[in-house]
Amino acid sequence: MSASGQQDEFKRAAAARAVEEIHDGMIVGLGSGSTAEFAVEALAARVVKGLRVEGIPTSERTAALARRLGVPLTDFAAHRRIDITIDGADQVERGTLNLIKGLGGALLREKIVATASARMIVVVDASKLVDRLGGAVPLPVEIVSFGWEAVLASLASAACAPRLRHVDSRPFVTDNANYIADCAITDIADAAALNVRLKTIAGVVETGLFIALASQVFVGRAGGVDVFSR
Amino acid sequence: MSASGQQDEFKRAAAARAVEEIHDGMIVGLGSGSTAEFAVEALAARVVKGLRVEGIPTSERTAALARRLGVPLTDFAAHRRIDITIDGADQVERGTLNLIKGLGGALLREKIVATASARMIVVVDASKLVDRLGGAVPLPVEIVSFGWEAVLASLASAACAPRLRHVDSRPFVTDNANYIADCAITDIADAAALNVRLKTIAGVVETGLFIALASQVFVGRAGGVDVFSR
Repeated sequence: MSASGQQDEFKRAAAARAVEEIHDGMIVGLGSGSTAEFAVEALAARVVKGLRVEGIPTSERTAALARRLGVPLTDFAAHRRIDITIDGADQVERGTLNLIKGLGGALLREKIVATASARMIVVVDASKLVDRLGGAVPLPVEIVSFGWEAVLASLASAACAPRLRHVDSRPFVTDNANYIADCAITDIADAAALNVRLKTIAGVVETGLFIALASQVFVGRAGGVDVFSR
Repeated sequence: MSASGQQDEFKRAAAARAVEEIHDGMIVGLGSGSTAEFAVEALAARVVKGLRVEGIPTSERTAALARRLGVPLTDFAAHRRIDITIDGADQVERGTLNLIKGLGGALLREKIVATASARMIVVVDASKLVDRLGGAVPLPVEIVSFGWEAVLASLASAACAPRLRHVDSRPFVTDNANYIADCAITDIADAAALNVRLKTIAGVVETGLFIALASQVFVGRAGGVDVFSR
């Protein structure tokens, strides 16, 4: 099996294990990205066997997948509180379980859903675990499109080196019609303070730093799934 | 003259006085709302007489007014820094010159423009001056439409009583396609701390608290214009 094929197996195993935490009658936050999609597939398999749940998706893409697989959807108009959310992450800091998310571009809805959840389970393969956030993975920051040039200048003054994300040489547009700035930061010493510093900039809609939101992290590896709790 | 006609005269006088601060070659931030529109009119009168400036508007409405009156417009793609911004406010705190803005719904672009400005002049009539922000005037908070019900619940946990703004029994939509929550707060003791607390909520795009952004406040009154500096 190829390295990426094996990594997918580890993600799939972690996602399946996380979905075992879902019980009848729950409102479930549905994450975005490849690992979260494995969780939606595992959840759909249980729905086919009779599990009754309703999902709140964190992206248009996840919503489409859930519909296709027969997972019933709901929204915040019907439910203010979510019982459990299962989502992936781009980096997980050992110990704190603080996260970097947003390489897929869905960080804003993911954070709103995670904040409204009694419990957030993060599913990853072991390559996502780090001793300290930052470094190889840029920090995605969702910004408004109006005045993005000025907002990038403000981000640059706040100790990160921002680059506007592009797709096919046009600015990447989020589900909320905003842009993403990817900020290179060598080493995030105080993630909570950085989150406040960046988010309070005018024009910043949300940062990819998820502080104290993950309740547990399920890590797929050869031979099993490790569970880390905060 | 009616009371509101007289108030308009005071606003117009303050706006005209503020526009005297604009010089040839400047990039000018153009605020939104009735008083800021008086400033655009006064600026247009000077442009007709030969003043060369370029404006960056804070709302679609102000952009349309400027175009109609012949004020040349530019944007952040051409200019990262603004020399001077003239805008109104819903409340001005004596001493600190901290502001509440956003009753007109343009707070996000207004804050981005104010932040990028070397100098922000606020023009008001005396009824806007208060010893402490809050009370009679609600604090507008721009929020994303996705999950607004959950975002309102988060705002309610942060010591403000939010109400989703409606127009003709539909949610009011900002120029950035977001919603506005109007938060009733009896007394804002620490505006800077409240701004951080509200803005760091997932789903909050921007608050109407303008902290340490106004350089000067020009207040129209019977017989003249008072100038307060920070």
